[in-house]
Amino acid sequence: MDVTKFAIPEVIFGKNSLDYLGPCAQRNGAKRVLLVSDPGLEDAGWVECLVDKLDQAGMHWAYFSDVSSNPRDSQIHRGAEFYASQRADVVIALGGGSPMDLAKGIALIASNGGRIRDYEGANRIQYPLPPMIFIPTTAGSGADISQFAIVTDEERKVKMSIISRTLVPNISIIDPNFLQTKPEWLIKASAIDALSHAVEAYVSVLASPFTEMQSLKAIELVIKNLEEAVRTKSLQSLSKLSIASTAAGMAFSNASLGVDHAIAHSLGGEFDVMHGHVHPVLLPAVMRFNLQACPEKMAMIGEIITDERLSTDEDTAMRGIEALEDFFSRLDIAMNLAELVDDRQKIPDICDLAVKDACVLTNPRSVSKEDCQAICEEVW
Amino acid sequence: MDVTKFAIPEVIFGKNSLDYLGPCAQRNGAKRVLLVSDPGLEDAGWVECLVDKLDQAGMHWAYFSDVSSNPRDSQIHRGAEFYASQRADVVIALGGGSPMDLAKGIALIASNGGRIRDYEGANRIQYPLPPMIFIPTTAGSGADISQFAIVTDEERKVKMSIISRTLVPNISIIDPNFLQTKPEWLIKASAIDALSHAVEAYVSVLASPFTEMQSLKAIELVIKNLEEAVRTKSLQSLSKLSIASTAAGMAFSNASLGVDHAIAHSLGGEFDVMHGHVHPVLLPAVMRFNLQACPEKMAMIGEIITDERLSTDEDTAMRGIEALEDFFSRLDIAMNLAELVDDRQKIPDICDLAVKDACVLTNPRSVSKEDCQAICEEVW
Repeated sequence: MDVTKFAIPEVIFGKNSLDYLGPCAQRNGAKRVLLVSDPGLEDAGWVECLVDKLDQAGMHWAYFSDVSSNPRDSQIHRGAEFYASQRADVVIALGGGSPMDLAKGIALIASNGGRIRDYEGANRIQYPLPPMIFIPTTAGSGADISQFAIVTDEERKVKMSIISRTLVPNISIIDPNFLQTKPEWLIKASAIDALSHAVEAYVSVLASPFTEMQSLKAIELVIKNLEEAVRTKSLQSLSKLSIASTAAGMAFSNASLGVDHAIAHSLGGEFDVMHGHVHPVLLPAVMRFNLQACPEKMAMIGEIITDERLSTDEDTAMRGIEALEDFFSRLDIAMNLAELVDDRQKIPDICDLAVKDACVLTNPRSVSKEDCQAICEEVW
Repeated sequence: MDVTKFAIPEVIFGKNSLDYLGPCAQRNGAKRVLLVSDPGLEDAGWVECLVDKLDQAGMHWAYFSDVSSNPRDSQIHRGAEFYASQRADVVIALGGGSPMDLAKGIALIASNGGRIRDYEGANRIQYPLPPMIFIPTTAGSGADISQFAIVTDEERKVKMSIISRTLVPNISIIDPNFLQTKPEWLIKASAIDALSHAVEAYVSVLASPFTEMQSLKAIELVIKNLEEAVRTKSLQSLSKLSIASTAAGMAFSNASLGVDHAIAHSLGGEFDVMHGHVHPVLLPAVMRFNLQACPEKMAMIGEIITDERLSTDEDTAMRGIEALEDFFSRLDIAMNLAELVDDRQKIPDICDLAVKDACVLTNPRSVSKEDCQAICEEVW
């Protein structure tokens, strides 16, 4: 192992941890908060709840909610202008991956200037960002933990990966109470996003002992708790999905991802497909593709999924991938690409973009455009 | 689970990670560094090596090395005066637990004023500390990860626990190269300190899923690698001890410790016994004492130590404790209190102090002075 880095935000986790917002903002020097969220959370009353806490803590605040499910460069630039006009000094984000990635983009442009596409790729951010306090309302994106921001470039129709340690928020306040108000499909899509983070980070060429243990814990927690969480919406099972999402975030933020996410980013940019819907389609095929490059690790994943070990790593791994497909099929979710994309002719274009994504660099097996196409055709 | 917090420094880990020192100091705004280390590391040439790196990065530096194996309040106050006289802006510590705890104390007094005993206990630090970059040279103390500083109050002859999130350094640079230059006894004592952190944090009343996975990994790595590391001093096995120490640090920093450490702190303050020598004596007895309060967790520890599970949790746990005693006895280290302390009559005084230590608050079983005495008598 070469030198490895492990950086995460301070995590405050648990039922009613939202009560810590005021003190957290204060000790980060907040006087004028920019609060980023979305209309759905506004309708559900959560934005008002947060604003009340900021009022109680005696803070000025301004609210920005222009965000789509794949956040766009234009939204970031409008948000950054708003941040400046309000003379804000801290960014608080409430929501799933989209408002959080939007908030990262706003904090970046507000402090470093320029256009968001200037920062595409790894380690291109020069100046410190304002303090960021993130409150995830879904259990999956990991945006509250990670050094990634994923933003759609509207002109090029591509999801850019922006990667920098400075994009790790200062504090992540994770309150599983939010999950009880979420629809089934969102709980499933988010948890499977977390699962795909965990799997891809585990086999990444940048995986370290620090990220590997987080990956394995996350895989175990999603497999063992998602069905019960969807069925019962018990706080206990939903909390376990939150822990999984957080652990997976710690893993992928520091080990990066692989070709499943490279294709998912391309699909999100080109077709605006919701990120969480892509993984049940792609992940098993990507795992089969990667198996030859990391049979021991794939066998470990297989053993966690099935609680069984067969006579060879390959058999254990394949049995795990089949069990994962069974798991997805029991969840009543789309499992073919044709259910997400209406035109098979677009596959070459999708794969053109995918092989340029930063996530392919850390995939355990090197991947060509033809490999990508074969994966997409296999799951069509 | 109530609200739980998990905060760790940014970790840079691996062979030659020391090369990151200059850039790390720069991005923490360092212009004038206070470097804290000890005469042993100076003799070994490591201090010079660090100073060269600071010179190359164009930084002023001043060096402070007045530290004993249980760092003292007077050393901290002298160090803080030196920090101020040098107008330093960053603290870099190189060493085992003692120089790092000394450095935390200096950073604390330099920024918050007063005397170190004013901060004894949890969460009594009001103002931010200067940036701290720590470079551990042993694999055990976890001081480079933790929110603890343990300092001897010379007047009262007591080791004070000072606990605050602000005592977590900004960056921990962990280079296993250092361990190859260390004597066997130090590698053993440090690794067993890490093991005791992992065990006590795992059964702590503040343990969370985030700390538990770190504890279990650390226990496994020490048990599986310490003997080989001592025998071969291979970088691979020493690296695994470094990973164990780091993981155990993440665990105990956030979950705290128990009665083994409470007694160890008392012994360190009263008799200046080296911290790492106390745990092989106390830990198995403390585990037996705690077993009734957490049989499932003790069984999990037992399973990791022995790779076996028996028909009841109690049996699995007891088998694990016996195997741990076998493990210690193979290491040729002191296993009776009489080998560390020359006067059995002091046990009541030691236990008087131990039950006042902050670590007893998180022990899984409530513990009286009489319980402490029984443990000390059992291992005399």
